[in-house]
Order: sequence, then C-alpha cells, then structure tokens
Amino acid sequence: MVIPSSSVAKADIAVQSSKKVKYVYSFDEGNKNMKQILGGKGANLSEMTKIGIPVPFGFTITTEVCEYFSKHKDYPEGFAEQLQEKLRLLEVKMVKKLGDPVNPLLVSVRSGAAVSMPGMMDTVLNLGLNDSTVEALAKKTGNDRFAYDCYRRFIQMFGDVVMGVEHHLFEEAIDKLKKQRVVKMDTDLNEEDLKNLVDEFKEIVAKNSKKSFPDNPLEQMKMAIEAVFKSWDNDRAKTYRKINNISGLKGTAVNIQSMVFGNMGDDCATGVAFTRNPSTGDRDFYGEFLINAQGEDVVAGIRTPMEISKMAEMNEDLYNQLLNAKDVLEKHYKDMQDIEFTIERGKLFLLQTRSGKRTAQAAIKIAVEMVEEGLLTKEEALLKIDAKSLNQLLHPQIRRGATRNVVAKGLPASPGAASGKVVFTAEDAMDLSVDKNEKVILVRKETSPEDIAGMHSAQGILTARGGMTSHAAVVCRGMGKCCVAGCTDIIVNSSAKKILIGDLVINEGDIITLDGSTGEVMLGEMEMQEPELTGNFRTIMEWTNEFKKLQVRTNADTPEDCKVAVGFGAEGIGLCRTEHMFFAEDRIHFVRQMILAKDENGRKKSLEELKKYQKEDFVKIFEVMEGRPMTIRLLDPPLHEFMPEKEEQIQELANDFEMPVEDLKLIISNLHEINPMLGHRGCRLGITYPDIYKMQVQAITEAGIEVQNNGIDVDVEIEIPLVGMINEFIYLRDVVKETISSYGEKVNFRYKIGTMIEVPRACLIGGELAHEAEFFSFGTNDLTQMTMGLSRDDLGKFIPIYLDKGIIERDPMAGIDQEGVGKLMRVCVESARKEKPEFEIGICGEQGGDPESVEFCHNLGLTLVSCSPYRVPLARLAAAQAAIKN
Amino acid sequence: MVIPSSSVAKADIAVQSSKKVKYVYSFDEGNKNMKQILGGKGANLSEMTKIGIPVPFGFTITTEVCEYFSKHKDYPEGFAEQLQEKLRLLEVKMVKKLGDPVNPLLVSVRSGAAVSMPGMMDTVLNLGLNDSTVEALAKKTGNDRFAYDCYRRFIQMFGDVVMGVEHHLFEEAIDKLKKQRVVKMDTDLNEEDLKNLVDEFKEIVAKNSKKSFPDNPLEQMKMAIEAVFKSWDNDRAKTYRKINNISGLKGTAVNIQSMVFGNMGDDCATGVAFTRNPSTGDRDFYGEFLINAQGEDVVAGIRTPMEISKMAEMNEDLYNQLLNAKDVLEKHYKDMQDIEFTIERGKLFLLQTRSGKRTAQAAIKIAVEMVEEGLLTKEEALLKIDAKSLNQLLHPQIRRGATRNVVAKGLPASPGAASGKVVFTAEDAMDLSVDKNEKVILVRKETSPEDIAGMHSAQGILTARGGMTSHAAVVCRGMGKCCVAGCTDIIVNSSAKKILIGDLVINEGDIITLDGSTGEVMLGEMEMQEPELTGNFRTIMEWTNEFKKLQVRTNADTPEDCKVAVGFGAEGIGLCRTEHMFFAEDRIHFVRQMILAKDENGRKKSLEELKKYQKEDFVKIFEVMEGRPMTIRLLDPPLHEFMPEKEEQIQELANDFEMPVEDLKLIISNLHEINPMLGHRGCRLGITYPDIYKMQVQAITEAGIEVQNNGIDVDVEIEIPLVGMINEFIYLRDVVKETISSYGEKVNFRYKIGTMIEVPRACLIGGELAHEAEFFSFGTNDLTQMTMGLSRDDLGKFIPIYLDKGIIERDPMAGIDQEGVGKLMRVCVESARKEKPEFEIGICGEQGGDPESVEFCHNLGLTLVSCSPYRVPLARLAAAQAAIKN
Repeated sequence: MVIPSSSVAKADIAVQSSKKVKYVYSFDEGNKNMKQILGGKGANLSEMTKIGIPVPFGFTITTEVCEYFSKHKDYPEGFAEQLQEKLRLLEVKMVKKLGDPVNPLLVSVRSGAAVSMPGMMDTVLNLGLNDSTVEALAKKTGNDRFAYDCYRRFIQMFGDVVMGVEHHLFEEAIDKLKKQRVVKMDTDLNEEDLKNLVDEFKEIVAKNSKKSFPDNPLEQMKMAIEAVFKSWDNDRAKTYRKINNISGLKGTAVNIQSMVFGNMGDDCATGVAFTRNPSTGDRDFYGEFLINAQGEDVVAGIRTPMEISKMAEMNEDLYNQLLNAKDVLEKHYKDMQDIEFTIERGKLFLLQTRSGKRTAQAAIKIAVEMVEEGLLTKEEALLKIDAKSLNQLLHPQIRRGATRNVVAKGLPASPGAASGKVVFTAEDAMDLSVDKNEKVILVRKETSPEDIAGMHSAQGILTARGGMTSHAAVVCRGMGKCCVAGCTDIIVNSSAKKILIGDLVINEGDIITLDGSTGEVMLGEMEMQEPELTGNFRTIMEWTNEFKKLQVRTNADTPEDCKVAVGFGAEGIGLCRTEHMFFAEDRIHFVRQMILAKDENGRKKSLEELKKYQKEDFVKIFEVMEGRPMTIRLLDPPLHEFMPEKEEQIQELANDFEMPVEDLKLIISNLHEINPMLGHRGCRLGITYPDIYKMQVQAITEAGIEVQNNGIDVDVEIEIPLVGMINEFIYLRDVVKETISSYGEKVNFRYKIGTMIEVPRACLIGGELAHEAEFFSFGTNDLTQMTMGLSRDDLGKFIPIYLDKGIIERDPMAGIDQEGVGKLMRVCVESARKEKPEFEIGICGEQGGDPESVEFCHNLGLTLVSCSPYRVPLARLAAAQAAIKN
Repeated sequence: MVIPSSSVAKADIAVQSSKKVKYVYSFDEGNKNMKQILGGKGANLSEMTKIGIPVPFGFTITTEVCEYFSKHKDYPEGFAEQLQEKLRLLEVKMVKKLGDPVNPLLVSVRSGAAVSMPGMMDTVLNLGLNDSTVEALAKKTGNDRFAYDCYRRFIQMFGDVVMGVEHHLFEEAIDKLKKQRVVKMDTDLNEEDLKNLVDEFKEIVAKNSKKSFPDNPLEQMKMAIEAVFKSWDNDRAKTYRKINNISGLKGTAVNIQSMVFGNMGDDCATGVAFTRNPSTGDRDFYGEFLINAQGEDVVAGIRTPMEISKMAEMNEDLYNQLLNAKDVLEKHYKDMQDIEFTIERGKLFLLQTRSGKRTAQAAIKIAVEMVEEGLLTKEEALLKIDAKSLNQLLHPQIRRGATRNVVAKGLPASPGAASGKVVFTAEDAMDLSVDKNEKVILVRKETSPEDIAGMHSAQGILTARGGMTSHAAVVCRGMGKCCVAGCTDIIVNSSAKKILIGDLVINEGDIITLDGSTGEVMLGEMEMQEPELTGNFRTIMEWTNEFKKLQVRTNADTPEDCKVAVGFGAEGIGLCRTEHMFFAEDRIHFVRQMILAKDENGRKKSLEELKKYQKEDFVKIFEVMEGRPMTIRLLDPPLHEFMPEKEEQIQELANDFEMPVEDLKLIISNLHEINPMLGHRGCRLGITYPDIYKMQVQAITEAGIEVQNNGIDVDVEIEIPLVGMINEFIYLRDVVKETISSYGEKVNFRYKIGTMIEVPRACLIGGELAHEAEFFSFGTNDLTQMTMGLSRDDLGKFIPIYLDKGIIERDPMAGIDQEGVGKLMRVCVESARKEKPEFEIGICGEQGGDPESVEFCHNLGLTLVSCSPYRVPLARLAAAQAAIKN
C-alpha cells in the first residue's frame, strides 16, 4: 500500500477543498435527506449514526463520482485524496489499519443508489484480507476456521463480482472438496480444508481471469469501487430500472464500512426484519435471521432462516435491543422500516434501514393505523402509499367459497391470485406470454436477477426455496404480482420440466393456480372474484375526497363496467365509446348493412335498427349513473374495422347479404387505408355521413328523455372525436344541436356539446375551440401517437431497441410525455382558459390512471381525469397526493 | 312603385344615420382602396368618377350587405332606406326616374367582389323596362327596334339569371322565329318580331318559373339584387374560389348603374381592352370591340370581335378619347389596366377598370418596362408580379427547331405548350386525367363556367370560337395553362367526339399538341424543352437578390436536377433524399439483399456495394454544386417500400435470391405496418440499423474528400430525419460524428450535422435540439400530416367533401397551415433561437414553393426555403416580395 507523502496530500486538499466538490462523506457527516448523492443506504447509515443507533463506522462515496466515472471511465480530480482522508479517519476511529499485519481493518463495499434496487447491485464483504491479514484475524479472534472461512468467501465474492470469474467454478470446487471429505455442509469443512480452498480459489481466479488475485488491500478496495460503479450499468441493473421506470439518477454511491461478523460462531447472527408485516400491514415485528451466517445468506434464500420471534426465546436481551432500535427507527422515520442487522459476539449492529417495501394492502393498513397512532397526519399518510401499488388490491382473488384443490403450500409472499400454464424458464415465460398471449406461472427453485424479464411476463411466481424476503418475494411484491415462495412441498426438476409433489407430477403446460395471500398452490384454473372497496381501503379512499381537486371519472361502455366504477368511487363517465356497442354480435350485422347500403334509404333503415340498440344501452347506463356526468363519444373508428378480415368470414358475409363475394372484397379493399390512424375516422366520418351521428344523438336524446321522465337525473356530455379544425367542430356541433332541438320541449335533461382533443392541431387552436365548445377531453392515446409520430401498433419493431440503447427510459405510451405532449396540452389549456376561465377540461385514456400523469393533470389545472374502472381508486389517491404535494 | 311618405323616411334616416353602418355608396363617395366593402368593380367605378373619367353614374351596395344576407336570408336594418336614398340621388342626377312612363331610368345590376372572378357572377342589363317604359324608350330614342331588342334581352337575362329559367328555352324561341322568318342573324329580326318575342319570352318565364314576369321596376331591382347575392354561393362561384384559393371575403357588392347603350345603332359600340398586351407585355393598346352590341357579346365570345386598332380607322376622335383614358388610368393606377367601355351615339363611357390579368411573361415585361419608364420603383415592380404565375414561364415549351406538323391555327390565348389525348367534355377530362393519370387536351366549341373543373385537369384547352378575352382565354391565363382559342379552322363535333379540319378527322383519344404562345395546333406528341432564365426574367430575378432575406435552395437528388436548379438561381440544396438513389434499377438489388441479409456479414457486404454507388452520386452532385451548401438527408422511408408488391415480382425476387417464395412473403409481410407513416422509418431505422447510416456517411465523407482534393469546395449538411426525442438525435449525431472522425485528418471539407423537424414533438423540444444540432430543416409535408392527423394518402375520401361543405377552403397540403402547423413552427423557432440566436433553420417540401408559405417563413425569421428546381424562381420572387412587404 503506497501512501503518498502526507504533507503533500494535505496541502493539496487544503488548497483545493474550498473550490472542490465533496466526494466522500463519513457516516457522521450525512443525513437521510442526502439520498441523491449518498444513495438510500448511505444516507440512512449516516442518519442512524446521527440518532445513536449502533452502526459500524464507515464512509460513503457519492453518486456524483459514479456519474463522472460512467462518463469518463476515470475519477474526478481530488477524489483520490478525499478517499484517502476518509479511510484514514475510519482507521483512526476503529483503531485498525487496512492491510495492517497485526490489527487489520476489514471492510464491506456495497452499492446503494438513491432508489433501492434489491438484488441488482454488487457487494463485496471481508475486503482487506490477504495471506498476512488473515493470520492476524485468526490470531485476534482465536478462530482460524472463521478467519479462513472469511478469506475463502472474500476470494469467491471478489473473484465473482470484481474479477468476473464465474460463480459456479467456486461452488464446484467446494462440492468436490466436500465429496473428498465426505461431508454435507459447508460448516463441516475444517480450517485445513478452508486453507486449501483459499489456495484453490486463488488458482481458479488466476486461471480464469488471467490475473493473480490482488493481495494489496488498497488495490482490492479500488478494484471493488470500480466494480460497483461498473455494475450500475450492467444489464440486470438496467433491466430493473427499465421495468420500474427509474430514471434521472446520477448513479450509485459506494458505502465502505468496517466489517462486523455474524459468522464468528453461535453467538453471532445476521438477519433482516420489517418493523411491521410488509404483506398484511399488521403491527408485528416481522423478520428472519440465521445463526452464524453472513448477511448474504439470508437474502439469497440459500438456507431457510428462522422467524425473528424465535430470537426472544434464544436471547431476550438481544431481542429487546432489536425491538428498541425498531421503535426508535419507526418513530424517527415515521414509516415502516426494512432493516438489516448483524450480531457479533452478542452485540447488535444495524447495517441498513430503509422504507420497507410493502403490499398495497399493508401500505393502506399501515397508513391508516399510523394516523390512529398519531404518528402521521392524513396528508402524510396518503403520501406514504404508492398509488401504483393499489393495482395489487384491484387484482382478482379466488372466488370466495370456491372449492380449492390444494396440492402444496408455501409462503404467502405476494398477494393476489393467478392461474396459468406452468413454465420453468424465464425465456419460456416470455415466449408463451408475449408471443402467444398465454397466461403462465413461472416455477423456479429460486429466482435470480436474470429471471426478471420472465417474472414480469408471468401471472404469478412459485419457488421451492427462499423466504419472505427472498429475491422472488421482494421482486413480486414490487411488481404487484402474486407469488408463493419457499414451497418446500414441491421438487422442481427444471431440466425435465416437471414438478413433483409426492407422487403427483405437474408437467410443463399444465394449469395451476396460486393464491399469494395464503401460499396455496392448486391444480387447474379457478374462478376469480373482483376486488371491493372495504375496511381500511375505504377509509383511505374517503380521505382522498378531503384533498383532491380533480374529479375522477371512468372510461366505461357498458352498464356492468359503470357499476364497478361507481363502486370504486367514479364520479362520472369520462369516456363512453359508442362504437363498442356496435361490435356486439347482434348489432354488427346492422353496422355492416349500413356500410354496404347502396343508397340513402338502405342506410337509414340500418341506422334505424341500430338506434334501437343504442337507445336501450344508453337507458341502462343512465340508470346506473344516476345523474352523474357522462361523456359520450360519437363514432370514432374507421369503417373498415367493422368489416371481417378472414376469407371465410367475408364469404359468409357475402352470403348473408346475397352479394357476389368479389363485390364485397372490392368494398372492403376500398375501405382500406394506408395510415388508418390518420384517415377517414372520427369527426371525418361524422361530416361525410352525418346520418350516423344524427342516429347516435337521437338515441342519446330519446334515452335521456325516457330516463329523466322516470325520475332519474341524466347529465350528458356529447363528445365529437378527432377534431382538428374549428369548422369541423362547428359543423357537427350544429348537427348535434339541431338533432336534439328537433325534440323540442320534450328535452328535459342536461347536456353539453364538446370535443376530444387528440389531434395536435386541436391543441394549437384551443382558444378558438373553447369559444365554440362546452368542454374538452384530452384523448392522450392518440395525441401522444400523433405528437410523437408513433403508431402504437407498429412501435414493437424499434421501441425495445430504444429501451436497450437508453434512447428512452420507458414505454412512451405508459404515461403523459410531459416534455412533448404535455407542453402541447399546456398550450391548449392556457388558451382555452383565457377564453373561458372555468372551462371544463379533462383527460381520458389509460394515462388517466398513471399517478405521475394524474399529478401532471392536477398541476395543469384540469377539471377531471378518467381511467378504466379498476384504476379509479389509484387515480383518486394520485389526485389527492397531487393536491397535497402542490 | 310605392315610395313611402318621404318625410317619415327621411326622419328615420336622420335619427339612425349616426349609429348606422353605411350600406350604399354613390359612385362619388368611394375610392379604389375600398375594395373590401365596395368590391373591385365598385371601388374602381368610384375611383374613375373621382378622377374625371366618364362613367355612367350609379351606386354600390356593400359586400357587408351580402354577408348579412348570406347569414340571415334578409337585409340589415336601415338598408332599404339607404337604397332608396341613393336611388333617388341617381334619379336626380340622371334626370330620369325608375319606372317613369315618360323618362324612365334604366340600370344595370352587376356583381363585383373584392377579388375579380370573371364569368362567375351574374349580371342583369336594361333593368327598369316594362310594357310602359319600353314605349318611352322607343319614343325617346326614336328606335322601336332598339327598345324592343333591349326589352327582349332584359326578359331573357332576367328570366335566366334571376328567375332561373333555362337559357336555351329563350335561344330556341329565337331560332324558331328566325327559321319562320327565314333569316340568319338576330339583327335581321325586325321590331315586330321582337315585340312578339317579348310576349313569347314572358310566356316562357311564366310557364317555367310559375311566376309572371315582374313589371314593377323596383320589384325587378330588388329581385336582381337578391339574385346577385345568392349567386355568391352558387356552385360555379364556389368552385372558382376553391380553385383560386380565394377566401376571407365578405361576399359580393352590387353595382347599380344607369345604362348606356352600345347597341343603339352603328354609332354605338362596346368593347374590352388592355392598356398593354396581356399575353406578351408589349406596350401596345390591346383590345377588341363590336359595333352595335352590348358588353356581354364581347366577353361571351359569341361573335368574333374586331381589333381595337381598327377603331382608329373608323373614328379617330373616339379612338383618341379611348387612348387618353387609357393613359390616365395606367398612370393613375401605376399598373396595366383591363377596361370595359361602351360608346353610345359617339360618346365614350368607361364601365369598368381593373388591374389586368396577364401571363407571367407579360407581368415580367410590364414590371421591367414600368421601372424603365419611371412609373414604378423596383420594389413596387416586384410586388406587381404574381409569384405563383411564374409557374407559367417554367412550363415546358416545344423544343426549338422541332418539325411542327401544324394542322390548324387559332389565337395564342395562353402561353406554354402541351401534348395530350383529345377529349370533348369536362367529365372525360377529369376521368382520364384524375382517374387514369393521362394527359388530356380539352377541345370545346367554347368553354363556359361549368367546364372549370375539367379545364383544371387538362394539360391544355383548344376552342373553336371566342377571342383573346373569351372565357377559355381568361381562365387559362389565370390557371397558367396553355390555351389556343378561336381556332376557326376546326369544326368540333362533340356528340360524335370528332374534330374536323377539312378532310382530316381527329378522334377522341388521338394525341395533339398545342402551342399557346403561337396558337398552333399540331398532330401527335412533341418533344418539349425546359425553360430558361433570360431577358426580363433574368432582370427580375437579379432584382430579387437585392431585397430578399431568405436563402433559396432546391430539393434535388440527381446531378441533373441540381444543374437545373442552379440555373434557376438555387443557392444550395435544401433536401437531397438519399433513398431516391436506392430505387434506381442497378441498386435496388443490393438494397433488397441488405434487407434480406441473414446476418451482420451479409448486410455489410450489400452495404459495401451500395456505398460505391452512393459515393459516385455524391461526387457528381458535389461537382455540380461547387461549394454551395447541400443538405443530405439520411435514409428515411420504411424498408418495405424497397420490396416488390406484385405476386410475379416477388416470385422473381425469390428466384434471384434462391429462397423459397413463402419465406420471402413472410419477410415482406413482417415489414408491413399498420400506420407506416408513424412506423419504423427515419431515424428509427438509423438507430435499429446504424450500419446503414454509417455506410451513407462514409459515402458522403469519401466523396467529399475526393472532390475537395480536386479543388472543388464541398459544404455538406448531414440531416437526420424523423427525430422526435433528444436522445434519438444525440445517438445518431454521435454515430455520424464518429464515422466521419474515423477518416481522421483526411477530412478536408465543411460539414454540419442537423435534423429535420417533421414530428410535432420535435417542435416542442426545439431549444434542446438546437443545443445539440447545427441546423434544422422543417419537413412541412410530414409535419402537416402529423399535426393535422391527416394522411395525405388517405385524405381523398373526405377532403373533397370538406371542400364542398366549406369546412376548409383549400387542400390542407398546398401551403403551410399557419394557424396550426405554423404555430408549432413558431414555438420551435423561438425556443431554438433563444438557445442559439443565429441558428440555421430552413424549410423543405413543396410548401417551400408556395408564395404565401414563403412569406410566412420570412416573417418567422427562417434562414432558408427549399423547393423543387422549377419553383426556385417563384420562391426567389416570393422571398423578395415578403422582404419588401414586411
């Protein structure tokens, strides 16, 4: 270890420090608000240090160094000096020295970005060991076996993570040795075995990395830091960020912390815990630990750990220390915490605390109870719930009372239920679900980060090993995906693609059902039931009404959907697509008859038939909505969508209409368009065939009169789609107006006439349109496609490559593109509100159920958002959060 | 005629006049700047009255009354009183009275909008005649025949125009009478005949309109005014406005003017004239007149009139009066005038003056000569030329020295030359040219407004009758379309679809060639030659350089096109589409090989081949451009465009590549997209297949190095298409940069890297893009399509209906949509220039050759416009005009 002449180094630092960025922070220099530069782990280690929780001392290298390193493949000026200074400080504090042959400092090197990415980043423990310091460690602990176990673990981890030597090579060497020695467990190997293993591991490293294992601890540290930084851009990390829409981070911080050992003997342990139950939200201390183990062993799910409550029986004092730390942390952070701890020779150390991931059900329960406990205000409590996670609660459950053919039981690792075909590899999961659109259950011994994409496309995950905090469990809860973990009843034979449960064999492709809330595994497909708003969930939803400014409506076309949405608190319908009513089997005939009509008369007859159906539909929906406002969009899709595509269907239709099949084909091919999305649809149909719109308005009017006469209020907003020019709107508004007016004084219900804003040009003439219209609704699906010049039907060919190359961070259709589409929306809103300050402007389309998009709409001052029925609660929460935040 | 108690009426007017709009102007109240409300005709009648030109007195009803009438089908309050007042004034001035049985006032009622619409609007002459006033007229003029000729003409015209009785019914009655009386000419009918005709005409009117002919002159006047207003919205007028992009007018004015008669005898005449030759621009007084006729006879082309110079021989004094009026008018208006005059018993009256329509050639000559004469400044002269009309000069001419198989000769009514298949009806012209994309020559005895759409789609027009001011001649000059009129050598048999020229028969479908500059009609197709910049044209173009701020470039992909454009003064290339180079027969094979390549290696080999071709192309173009800046767009269209579509071509290609045809079909169908315009093209191809862009950049670089080494300057702007996101640009800019950099110090030419702005989103991130890019070029074709959500390939199904229903005024692709797309462009330019004040921003696409769009670009502060080679002079003039105007 070469330490530069200290006087020079000090002078350097002194001269430069005033103008230099601070790149390294000791744990007593930071706090929990510095996540952006210290990462979540580093910021919380500092915070715990500050509030007196026992934390092994250390320091954090900032994310800015990572950012610099990613760009320049080098470190910023002054970094090396700061690193040295903080290391010296750590050595002084620990009274140990890195590489010291008598009193060596050992450290862990861990990554930690501002946002937690479990299992994604790499860690090195026991750094600082070499042939000389291992002897010192042995001497100091009086435990040769422990020292060499640490050493071989270090070589193995460092060789794998830092030097890129494949993991299994080390495992095979251990297995070979265990066979030779005729033992089963790693712990059965003695110190001599471990010493041999150290030598063999070094050879493996030298042979496979073409470099000898570094014995200079400072060199080790530098290599480890670099490896952490590089791991920021490895594929697993990138995939995780992509799937979780994590962007805008500088990089990862690196935490260097003096080692404490959970593996020095039976008075040592390591564990992880949640301050409350992350699955149910119950107020139980909840966790697992392993005696005589290092932290990785718990998280990796290699040995099945003990429940935390067992510790009380084994060592009450230690358990109480832990409970005390838990209470302090929860009160301090005002949130449920996920902690890691190690017990070294009876002394407790906390290695990490962070806001605990939780199911939506848990999040809701914790939020409500923390308000009851006086820990949080309602506003704070609402902000603690990840709106997106509510999707979980709105997942289907197995129908209550259904007979369950349970064949195995594991841990209820992530709630919800799912049925699907059994697959055994991530690739098969993707192939079947993406390519063939099949529902699959991914079954693995245990999952690893390589499986993430496959997990994403499965309906549910079943693992044979690992606990509630195993990789599978953590990732599934994050994804809101059903998971049964640690299901020891089953034997997974991946190569034969079979599950064995005693005598029972489940083959690839067989259908099973998982209940992630009970841990049950069942044969066959089961009937699911829809979620409801009850208990704490209802409480939270009631609170949202106290704060939110946005009205939340739903996109629904049927009385059934409307009922569901109203149950979830929808305040109206933001988008009722009338064409969906056209596709039903009993109506499509008349639609086709209308399209194929040879004359005005023929068309009128078909429209007359269709009107009966449409009126009936509207009557039913009006009855469900009971006077809540309801936006009805007139016919939008191009006519060719109503015609059959397949040869035999065309033949059949030709027979039905007694016309030559060639004539029909000609008509269909004439309806074909080069770019149908930019073609003859929406108001363009309304203008070329006003009779269709007239019929729809007649159906609405007649239904409205009838329902209102029956004493149920009706409030209709008639919406003209695809308007881009002021005259399109004026022309059709007048058609609608005149059609309604023709019913004279019979018209007894409220109505408005407005337009969808989905063509970019409509945004640009917002003021003029607002002058003529009574409301706007942004159709962000089409608006996004046109503004970005991106057809949702065709982007599959290049968007995956865009994601890979980092051109974009997430699917451009998933939320409002605030920098592009959002700007256009702002132009529109500003000019419309200048014309009419109280003008009603909403948004429909699935982006209305994306929390970030809802917040954007709130900030834009929109009147309402509308999304699918199952997303209504999510939108309500997001709307309340937006109002509280801003 | 009921005149209300004058005291009451006067009181009314007095009370209301202060707060009332003025709806009626006497000719001594207006001036030439009041076209918007008096119409062109009315404003100029006032102006002539003001400057002492002899004009029969009268008054003008404003366009605002027409606007009110169109909306409300009624007249504005106070209008009736104002009309009465002005009528009384006219009666006082003329010392005659409408309907007076002794001294009756007769008037003409003519339409006249702010923009001249020849032949489009309706006129009634001799209004005020009835059974009683006709006798007074006969007595006063001592000419019974004249009086009854006026009367029968009045009934005929009024019956047709105001009461909707078909024209031919009257003509048939005349023909029948002429047959009975065994005479040939109308003038051979005597007064008794005409009296009978009056009775018969009245019966025809009563029978066909179900109303008796009105004998109250005030009633006649009211009906005529209403008919003029209604004619504003008739189909012919609407078509004319549509074709000529006339919009934003309030309506037509109505001019009511005391009659003067050119048909009182042989000391009477009527004529039209241009103060200079409207075809060549020569400084000759140029016109035609008919002895003893009313104005309509000249314009309608029914009798072939005499040349104006003949008048000098017949009556030198009158001719000198006319010459004097001509000189006064041209000096006063500082422009070539188109005048109508009538000589009543040896006294000259001017009935109309207006800026004369002229060919582009004439416009240029007149402009240059008026500057020489000191009448105009260069700026004024440039503004007098209609930039759009330059298209005419850029029409092909018959190759000099070609042998001309001339079979007939008519009047050189509109310059240029054209070959095409003979058709005889407007419908056939449209069918063949629009549906079958064939070139046609429309041959008619004479044309009428009903033929306009057919004339629009023909290459040229040939008529047997009518002069240089006939309908066909005027309309063709307006359209810049070649026309030979009054070709008395030919007999047109429309029903048999034959032309007879002596013994020669030309059948429908035979090909003929017209030379509109010489009046020659030739058999067969002839070779054309391209126009050049010479003489006055060159002078005008040189003047444009003194004023214009915009750089004018061209869109060209071949050395030939580049040469033409440089000849027309193009200052560089604004858009070189590299894919056009891919389509050539010798390259398409390698393009397909590349698309079908099974691996990286295969693709590279094909690209290597393509590179050779591309380099060669660039070398040639660089040599032509001699250091002028040149924007080269990298590959843009989706790959499927390069694949064959037809069954047999696919089969052939499969054979070529020795692959199963089914495999090839699968590949082609995989390339198919739902909305290709919003699909996998432009930079999206560049990002998914960077090798293609690399190859193109290599070709550019190698060509650039070679040409620059040979002593010819090279200045390249490499353009990345379809960018919508900042990272798309950064990624590909770096690919381009690195590719060029790999040539190291060999790179000796200037280059920039920029992007096309054609996705709406790109406009919204203009500032960020400008930060990274070195230039922008608006691709307004795609930008318009995406902003309006309108596919150019599909709009044929609804845009014609939009035009019909008045939703839009012209094809949305014809010019920049300033209210929509233009706003988006402004957002982009403003944010880009905020980032880089001197940033280069251009526009390419055909809209760069639309004068209004060029003016818009000038006002937006763009750096350059680029259009097709033949439009370069037009764009240069438009750019100069924009600079002078603003």
